[in-house]
Amino acid sequence: MNKPQEILKLLKKYVEPVDNEIKSLLSDQNDYLIYDMMSYFFGFKDETLKDISSYGGKRFRSGLCILIADFYGKADKALEVATSIEIFHNFTLIHDDIEDRDALRRGKPTVWKIWGINHGINTGDSQMILANIELTRALERNNSISNEIIGIVNKKYLEVIEGQFLDFCLEDLSIEHSDVNANKYLEMISKKSAVLVGTPAMAAGIVSGKANEEQGNLWDYGFNLGMAYQLRDDLASIWACEDETGKAECKDIKEKKKTLPIIYLFEKAADGDKEILSKIYHKENITDDDVEKIKILLEKYEVYNYVWDIAMQYLEKSLGALEKLEISNDQKQILKNINNALISDVKETK
Amino acid sequence: MNKPQEILKLLKKYVEPVDNEIKSLLSDQNDYLIYDMMSYFFGFKDETLKDISSYGGKRFRSGLCILIADFYGKADKALEVATSIEIFHNFTLIHDDIEDRDALRRGKPTVWKIWGINHGINTGDSQMILANIELTRALERNNSISNEIIGIVNKKYLEVIEGQFLDFCLEDLSIEHSDVNANKYLEMISKKSAVLVGTPAMAAGIVSGKANEEQGNLWDYGFNLGMAYQLRDDLASIWACEDETGKAECKDIKEKKKTLPIIYLFEKAADGDKEILSKIYHKENITDDDVEKIKILLEKYEVYNYVWDIAMQYLEKSLGALEKLEISNDQKQILKNINNALISDVKETK
Repeated sequence: MNKPQEILKLLKKYVEPVDNEIKSLLSDQNDYLIYDMMSYFFGFKDETLKDISSYGGKRFRSGLCILIADFYGKADKALEVATSIEIFHNFTLIHDDIEDRDALRRGKPTVWKIWGINHGINTGDSQMILANIELTRALERNNSISNEIIGIVNKKYLEVIEGQFLDFCLEDLSIEHSDVNANKYLEMISKKSAVLVGTPAMAAGIVSGKANEEQGNLWDYGFNLGMAYQLRDDLASIWACEDETGKAECKDIKEKKKTLPIIYLFEKAADGDKEILSKIYHKENITDDDVEKIKILLEKYEVYNYVWDIAMQYLEKSLGALEKLEISNDQKQILKNINNALISDVKETK
Repeated sequence: MNKPQEILKLLKKYVEPVDNEIKSLLSDQNDYLIYDMMSYFFGFKDETLKDISSYGGKRFRSGLCILIADFYGKADKALEVATSIEIFHNFTLIHDDIEDRDALRRGKPTVWKIWGINHGINTGDSQMILANIELTRALERNNSISNEIIGIVNKKYLEVIEGQFLDFCLEDLSIEHSDVNANKYLEMISKKSAVLVGTPAMAAGIVSGKANEEQGNLWDYGFNLGMAYQLRDDLASIWACEDETGKAECKDIKEKKKTLPIIYLFEKAADGDKEILSKIYHKENITDDDVEKIKILLEKYEVYNYVWDIAMQYLEKSLGALEKLEISNDQKQILKNINNALISDVKETK
């Protein structure tokens, strides 16, 4: 069974160049604390701003981008765009942490928790600009890359922020609202999560000079993988033990999140059961007892299987696109291993 | 005497194309509320999201950019970069309003005040991405514009955010701290304010295909004008009546802001007077009586004249650079009129 740790091994060789590229970009800037805050968030410095060599995230998105470009023999063309995506992704997390008032990320205090909300907003802002400056490095260093990449990537970045917007909208609605439904939920995660897996895959094709058809297949591969991964993550947040995800069990339920399992449960439940869920989701605070009641309903209506099936449909699409790629069978196997490692059955791996 | 209203007349012909360009960019996007929030902030819609034709800001920066490009016969090349700068500037205001917890801007409720802090942060984020997407429109539509413009402009954008960072740092320090001094203050406003006047001027030269020397003179013209304007604004916040700036008189003092007049007063005051200022600035809330005491000290040490002289030095530099520009005397006169309108003596115009 592939575990997330194994993906790290597959992509490990790309973490160091990306980290070095981020460090080089940061060291190009003025000697202001704002860049130390970024270094802290990337895991290059500790809270006292001493250099450390800790692990600041999987660098999955940038790693995937360079891996695929490497398959095409163009790894050297992918570094800057991959790094931009990584910087952008981490910028969204800095602002996410503020918006969710999360005090911890990767087991460490979040930027706003240490330096305050204003610095948190502002550091995120400057980091987003750095993501764009990093994109311009791609053009400066590689004559073969068309400047169209900047518009293409920024349009994807915009979709990610739209996804965050849709998530806020979903949060604001009560569970009975007609806009709280599977389609709206899938639209939200497609933008908030899946776009940022599709983008590095597609970008690998663009910087490698691949034809539109190959770029489309890369997008389909990454985007659908991202969808499957997010749905799998939603299941894990309810069914996985704390050891695996680092999250408290049923955190999503305790926070009254309306993820697909809950939305589906509300759709499928008989009136009496619907009312139980509805009442609990209208309470100010949810007790462990309430969580237990919802878990019983989730089992009763076989919600796990339903959501898992949808995740599997996306995974199938991802694998279908993967098969069409102009890469060797060994290279396809590497991507399949990544898919398998990311999308393990929550109940089996528990 | 030129009044700010007269600048509007000079630049008025460029407001409509910029507004139309912003509207076209927004209408290119998905039909999400997030873009209505931007339309509201730009003054295209009211709070109920009904279309209005109100006035959402001077569009000074974008107007200046197109005006100068027009002098070179290249107004058609400047629209997208000018619009990007306008979008970026307005993005910074949306986040500024959150950071300062300002409930009103241009007499209307701020974005966060209507839709909450999370939407405010997120709308600003997406607007910054739109500023970059607008830059890519410049390349798509004009083959003659080099893609270097994207890196150049983004580095300036980064400086603006650095300026905000330096402003937070200044806020956090007590008035006695050695880092609260004129140089640090000038560094802060140079980034936070002046860069975003220098940039549209310089960008006009870039899109018009002007040589580096001309671009440098344009930068010097705009940057120094921006410095003079900010210092003039600092004076107005203390000495101007409410009618002119729309601010309550001495709002900067009431909020214990450490603008150059206050910094200079603390530097120049004798020990006893220094102590008066120091004590007042350490109080939780400043009374009208305290404000009066500080105003007496400001007069005693002739702070107005000192700061006004510094503003005049920047204005001289701006005019010196202006004289070197490769434009006609009539065109130079137009820029001089703009300078005069923006930098009127606060005490005289009161």
